[in-house]
Order: sequence, then C-alpha cells, then structure tokens
Amino acid sequence: MVKNPVRSEGDAFLRACRGEPAAHTPVWFMRQAGRSQPSYRRLRETHTLMEIVRDPRLAAGVTVSPVEDLGVDAAILFSDIMVPLEPMGVAFEIREGVGPIVADPIRTAAQVARLVELDPARDVPYVLEAVERAAASLAVPVIGFAGAPFTLACYLVEGGPSRGYIEVKRFMWSQPDVFRALMEHLTRNMQAYLAAQAAAGARALQVFDSWVGALAPDDYEAHVAPHMARLFAGLRHVPTLAFGVGTSGLIEAIARTGPAVVGLDWRVDLAVARDRLGADRPVQGNLDPAVLLAPWARVAEAARGVLARNGARPGHIFNLGHGVLPETDPAQLQRLVALVHEETRAATHEGEQTS
Amino acid sequence: MVKNPVRSEGDAFLRACRGEPAAHTPVWFMRQAGRSQPSYRRLRETHTLMEIVRDPRLAAGVTVSPVEDLGVDAAILFSDIMVPLEPMGVAFEIREGVGPIVADPIRTAAQVARLVELDPARDVPYVLEAVERAAASLAVPVIGFAGAPFTLACYLVEGGPSRGYIEVKRFMWSQPDVFRALMEHLTRNMQAYLAAQAAAGARALQVFDSWVGALAPDDYEAHVAPHMARLFAGLRHVPTLAFGVGTSGLIEAIARTGPAVVGLDWRVDLAVARDRLGADRPVQGNLDPAVLLAPWARVAEAARGVLARNGARPGHIFNLGHGVLPETDPAQLQRLVALVHEETRAATHEGEQTS
Repeated sequence: MVKNPVRSEGDAFLRACRGEPAAHTPVWFMRQAGRSQPSYRRLRETHTLMEIVRDPRLAAGVTVSPVEDLGVDAAILFSDIMVPLEPMGVAFEIREGVGPIVADPIRTAAQVARLVELDPARDVPYVLEAVERAAASLAVPVIGFAGAPFTLACYLVEGGPSRGYIEVKRFMWSQPDVFRALMEHLTRNMQAYLAAQAAAGARALQVFDSWVGALAPDDYEAHVAPHMARLFAGLRHVPTLAFGVGTSGLIEAIARTGPAVVGLDWRVDLAVARDRLGADRPVQGNLDPAVLLAPWARVAEAARGVLARNGARPGHIFNLGHGVLPETDPAQLQRLVALVHEETRAATHEGEQTS
Repeated sequence: MVKNPVRSEGDAFLRACRGEPAAHTPVWFMRQAGRSQPSYRRLRETHTLMEIVRDPRLAAGVTVSPVEDLGVDAAILFSDIMVPLEPMGVAFEIREGVGPIVADPIRTAAQVARLVELDPARDVPYVLEAVERAAASLAVPVIGFAGAPFTLACYLVEGGPSRGYIEVKRFMWSQPDVFRALMEHLTRNMQAYLAAQAAAGARALQVFDSWVGALAPDDYEAHVAPHMARLFAGLRHVPTLAFGVGTSGLIEAIARTGPAVVGLDWRVDLAVARDRLGADRPVQGNLDPAVLLAPWARVAEAARGVLARNGARPGHIFNLGHGVLPETDPAQLQRLVALVHEETRAATHEGEQTS
C-alpha cells in the first residue's frame, strides 16, 4: 500500500475532543486493528485473540499498526471489553464469529455479591503495559477503553450476544436493587480500569455502551444514566468518549451524563445530532461501516456527506458509526483517511495549521 | 380469562388515525395474533403457518380472536409479509425460529427482470377472503398490511434474516439502477396488494418497513423515500400506517413520505417524537414489548408513562414498539388493554364519548 501522504500532526484528535479547531478533521476507526488488517489476520493464524491481548508486545503491535498503515490520528488499545471481567470472577470464552459466552450468567443477588474488585495493576498488568508500549512508540494519542456498565451487564446477564436483550431487561425490572448493585460494581471497577489506562499513557478514554440502544429513553434515565454520570465524573482529567449503537433517541440523555465527546452511529443525521446536542459538544462519527464495501466513488460521496453535515464546526472526530467490518478492504480505509485529511485541511481549516 | 370490562366502541382506532379525539385511546398490538395466544399455539400443533395463511376460515379466525380475548380496538390480518412474493416468482420457506429463507437470493438485473406482476384476486384470493370474513364478523376495523419495499428487498437480497443488511446495502450502492427497478416492482405490486385488501374490507393499511432503521438518513432519502411516497400516494382513500424499528433518526423523513400515522418503536420518547413530527401527525406506539415480561406493576407504570408522554394530544394509537414477544402472558396484554382504556377514558377524554 502507498503510505498516506498527509500525516497526522498528533494533536488533531485531542483538539477535537476539546472542541477546538484543528489542522484537519481527525479520523480513526473503531476496530481499525482487527480482521480487516492483513497483518492482524496473519498474527491470528498462530495466536488466539486472548493470547494477543495478554501479550503486551503483541497487543501494542496490533494497536500501533493501523497508525502506520492507514495514517489515522489515534490508536485504540487492542483488547476486548470482557478482559477485566475475568479477574472480577466471571469465567467466559470468546467464541469465533459469536462473541463472548459467559459460563454462568448472572441472575441472582448472590451472584452479584460474589463479584470481586478489580485491581488493574495486579489483575491486568498486560493491558497497562500494552498501553505504555503503544504510547511510547506513537506520536498520535492512544485511546484506552472499557465496556460500559450496561453493555457488560448485557453480556453477564444474557450469557452472550443477544438480539432482544430480554433477559437483562427482565432482570432490571424484576430485581431493580440487584441490578443497581451490579451496575454499581461494574461502574466502580470500570472507572478504576480506565483510570489505570490513563495513568499508563492513554490520552483519551472511550466507553463502549454498544447495546444501550436497546433501551427506551425512560429506562436509560432510570437504570443507566446515573451510573454513566458517576463513571464520567471520576474521569475528568482525560477526555472521555461515549459510544453506543441505535442511540438516535438517546443522544441528549447520553450527553447529559458528561462525556467529552458523544459518539454517533450512522442512523442519525450528523447535522441534526449537532443541532440537538449544541455546537459546543464534540461528536464522533458517523459513516455507515457497510459503505466501505461499496465502490470507492460511493465511499467518497458518503464521507463528503458526513463532512458537509458537520460543516465548519470544530469538535468533529471522523469515524464510522460502528466497527470496521471484517471484509473491508484496508485500501479503502487508507483512501478514506487521506480524503478526510485533504478535504478538511483545504476547506474548513485553511490557515489554522497549529502544529 | 376475565373478559375486558371496557369494550371498544369500534371507531376509536379510525378516529385516532385521522387525528380526531376519540372516546378512549385505541390500542392494539403488533403480533397480537400469534405465539403468545394459547388458541393460536393449539392451532399450530396441527397446521403450519402457511396452511393457516392460505385457509381463509382459519386466517380470519386467528385475525378475530385477539379482539374477543384481549378487547383491542383493531384486528390485523393474520398473514406474513412474504405471502405475495411467491406468486411474484420468489420461492421461499418460513423456517421456525429463523424466519423466511429465500431459495435464490436476488443479486442481478436478470433476476429482477424475471419478477412477475402480482394479481391479488388471482394469486392470493385467500388473503382477500380472510380480510372479508374477519371484517364481516368484527365491529372494530381490520387492518390490512404488506411489507414495505425496502424490507422485502432485504429478504430478497439477503436471502433471509440478517444482522447487518450488508448484502442489500452493497447491492443498493453497487447497482443503484437495478436496486431502483426492484424497489419499483415491489412498490407497484404492494400498492395493488394493499388496495385489494382495502377493497376486501380492510379499513386501514399498515406498511411494515421493519428493517429500514438499518439505513443512514441520506440513504433512506435517496433509495427508499421516493418509493414510499409513491406507495402512500396511491392509497389516499384509506388511512395508512408506517412502521419501522430503529427509526429514531428517520421519523421526520418517514412522515414526509405521507403515511397517515407514523409508527414509533420504543427507543424514542413519544413526547419528543410528537414534538418533532408536529402535534397534528398521528403516531402509534410505543411501549417496549419486553416490558410485558416484567411484573404487572412495571407494565402499568411503563404504560402510564407512554400515555403521559402523549398527554392530551389526539391522534395516539397505543401499541408496542414492535411485535408481542412469544413468551408474553396474554393476561398481561388483556390487563394492558383495560388499563389504556380506563386511564384515557377517565383522564383525557372526559365528556368526549362519541359513540
């Protein structure tokens, strides 16, 4: 692949997180390190996902490579949202093509009471070392991450991926006090986990609440928002990014919980979302990941559409509305990064070269 | 079960479709005739779904029974959105617990060109007779229905249910002219199918665009909205209802295509949706179907929440945000109908007894 001619200046991503003008619109992709990347697929021929995650050298390498290969403005730690759950007492396996399967789904107060406290330095030192190694070798920021309490609760209660999230909702409505205890445990521990990643060198923290879009707004307010507000309140020293899918009806409520940046999936118009949130709330998104399977002309048109809907507003981090699909051609990703950099450097940020 | 003490007056549903005040807020449930009903489960012990659909006596019986058992204000034809596709040249089977599987998924212009025109009276007389029979035996309206062109295209192109709708999107972006021809074929034929149901006695028509929420707003506008607008424009003589899931970011665009009523799934606040659409646009929804698996106190609280968010605005049809889940206790549905009738008769419609 031809290397991206427009290199990132390093601080475009953090400036956008703060809502400040940047030399160009920063861009990175959820799952930019993963199945779409040939180097990752080669590594997976000899290692399982968890073997990579637990080897700081390998995890840092996977974290770093998209910056080199694609020219993105940020790296995201290569890991899995389930990783910190094992030392908390949750046995799981990651089944290929299915996702995490929890051996003993949580449905009772006794099970919640048995969850143990995570000590990141003791329990997941390999995660922190991977962050350190990646941060040391990169000019662009490393984003740390964790699963949001609700999405982790979905996995814990459902026992695995689910379409309707019926079990977690039934649990939430039938045993609200036990559910709250579970959410509080997860919130406290994910806060410690994220803070440890920041201390190890992560310069921003993304919280993946991938399944929160399954909830009605009143359930989000009652059962999720207070925990998210506490989580973000404990992480004020680093920019935080909230991400969810199917959240078009929730974005104001998500913004009120206090993340620096609100992630948008592709199912909301970015201009409408920015109007709803107020122009001073940075957003991240929101190209449909499936667009990257279309011919390049359509990718370019769709990407320009996202940029046009943002207009000249600062505080936009270009991303997909969900993770890169495994069948995505990495050359499309590379061209997309270049397009975002070139279009925004020329059009909306002329003369604002800040670094 | 105890019969519902508050019977429907028969016209509450149609009055709400027109945005007029009614004696009470009308209520019915998507999939009210189905797996949650003991009489239906008994029938399925000896008949397949398609055997019931093709027998007008049986289909009418299944259509009618929820009105008697639950006290709802409308019946919906018992059928399947795939039914009119077979005479159009699409072979499929309905696989238990999976849904429709299309033998030969459509991916080429030649396949689209081979689709034939539906003649409802010749090809699906049993559907029209089921509508006639149900309408003749009920005081409340029978709602006819069809799948929306995009959702049918999803099944035709994907070959079955799909999580990411990647194939249909790839088809739409890579072969936009062929996709448009497919959508036009489906639009023309579903319009004829719906008009025939209206002629047979259906007093309202619901268009199920269940999977349209997979699209970004700009793709909806470019590839779906023009077809929906044509569909609704051809059905002006009967109230039409548009339904989709995950459409919180699309409801204004859906309203612009011209249905009388905009269906809301549970992931948007009903008050916010009515503000966005304007108070004179009737809406249908939007209780989370999973709530019915919670203890009754939570069901009642959630239902009162939906009613409160509508406030005193006319033009609200109470429904779930998606179909009744198979494991739902029918006694909960019956209590819910009674609650909606009693709360709205007492609170917001006092003195407005219109029939």
